Amino acid sequence: MKTEILYGIHPVSEALKAGRRDIFTIYIAKENISKRLEKVLALAESLKIPIERPNSLHLKTLSGTAQNQGVGAKVGPYPMVEFSELLDGIRSPKSNPCILLLDNIVDPRNLGALIRTAVCIDTDAVIVPKDRSARPTPIVSKASAGALEHIRLVRVTNMVNTIKALKNGGVWVAGMDRTSDKSIFNNDLTVPVAIVVGGEESGIRPLVKKHCDFLMSIPQTGPVDSLNASVAGAVVMYEVFRQRRLSV
Amino acid sequence: MKTEILYGIHPVSEALKAGRRDIFTIYIAKENISKRLEKVLALAESLKIPIERPNSLHLKTLSGTAQNQGVGAKVGPYPMVEFSELLDGIRSPKSNPCILLLDNIVDPRNLGALIRTAVCIDTDAVIVPKDRSARPTPIVSKASAGALEHIRLVRVTNMVNTIKALKNGGVWVAGMDRTSDKSIFNNDLTVPVAIVVGGEESGIRPLVKKHCDFLMSIPQTGPVDSLNASVAGAVVMYEVFRQRRLSV
Repeated sequence: MKTEILYGIHPVSEALKAGRRDIFTIYIAKENISKRLEKVLALAESLKIPIERPNSLHLKTLSGTAQNQGVGAKVGPYPMVEFSELLDGIRSPKSNPCILLLDNIVDPRNLGALIRTAVCIDTDAVIVPKDRSARPTPIVSKASAGALEHIRLVRVTNMVNTIKALKNGGVWVAGMDRTSDKSIFNNDLTVPVAIVVGGEESGIRPLVKKHCDFLMSIPQTGPVDSLNASVAGAVVMYEVFRQRRLSV
Repeated sequence: MKTEILYGIHPVSEALKAGRRDIFTIYIAKENISKRLEKVLALAESLKIPIERPNSLHLKTLSGTAQNQGVGAKVGPYPMVEFSELLDGIRSPKSNPCILLLDNIVDPRNLGALIRTAVCIDTDAVIVPKDRSARPTPIVSKASAGALEHIRLVRVTNMVNTIKALKNGGVWVAGMDRTSDKSIFNNDLTVPVAIVVGGEESGIRPLVKKHCDFLMSIPQTGPVDSLNASVAGAVVMYEVFRQRRLSV
């Protein structure tokens, strides 16, 4: 079985709390045990997970980085969610899904930041294409402050077919496009919705864009006209959240 | 005179466009000239700025990084704005200022990301304390996609005195505090306002918080309860922007 090494306080704690993937060993550095590390230790003990105490140098080798904050975890593969499973959930009459589709987000830090915000507003799922996205690696888990361990992440082969299936499932698909004159603030986002966010430089691929129900933009003024991809995603996700809260 | 080396297409282009600081030399790598670099070259020529063509290795040494995208600029010191000048502007009866105060934002990438968003919504100024903030270095300019070259940045010695002066100038000072039960979505942010955003781990310093007119939070659900500092700043800045647009 393939294993990988998660590192950092948030990724390891959240993997323990989420309980979604196998955790074989927790590594806690021998030196400088902090209050936050003690909490991780206690959590691992309560879950009866084997604990090892390497020295800092050894932990750096194990995790492949000095940015490990004194903690690592040997874990099983990331638990991907199947698109068919997501579709079944959407079809439930009680659900009012908000889904995030990411096209061309290849920077693991941007992917992590977007997933972190998606978890904060309880997004139903994040969908990424297999060939045009950073993979859900330990780097992404770190960049997401462990949110990756909670999100429902779906990897699909074909974004256009995915969009068609979402539309058939009653979901409105809205593409973020900075050239659109429709503002996110003037669109009804309280309906079942999937938001497509593209990469910073290239945006959403043309064919993907073509299949969206509508396009919208985040209004901007000032001399520099481009938001960071993770900021753009956060602003539109929070607009969905705001509208839904107000409409309750 | 102290000089520094800006690097990257956005920082160099925006410094040229903003025209706020001395630009002594533009460096463009000899090899692999791209369309985007040609634009920088043409802009520098039109402004009659001396151009040098080092090879990539030399440019890497000059800029101190391989992340220079083939371009650098030898520039004068970053043009800081005096707080007194900002206060004069605020006192003008026509102004309805929106100011961002950053306390404890020590990561240059977070500072850059926050400044980038601040410029996108035309924030009047960003204020940082001299001792608790990343400095406006070329790294920050790069992280801000050049927005640093446009923002009015004020460095102050004492944040509490700054807040008092803003209040006396008729500005409401709102502190972001995740424990507050007042949501950003339920506060009137169309009034003259200064938003205080703290660092990710530690938040706003207690004494600074105490002097805010009110505290507010960004509502969150889900298992992980913390937004990235640059995302939290962006969400609240866009809420100010949205309310002001709607109220026109």
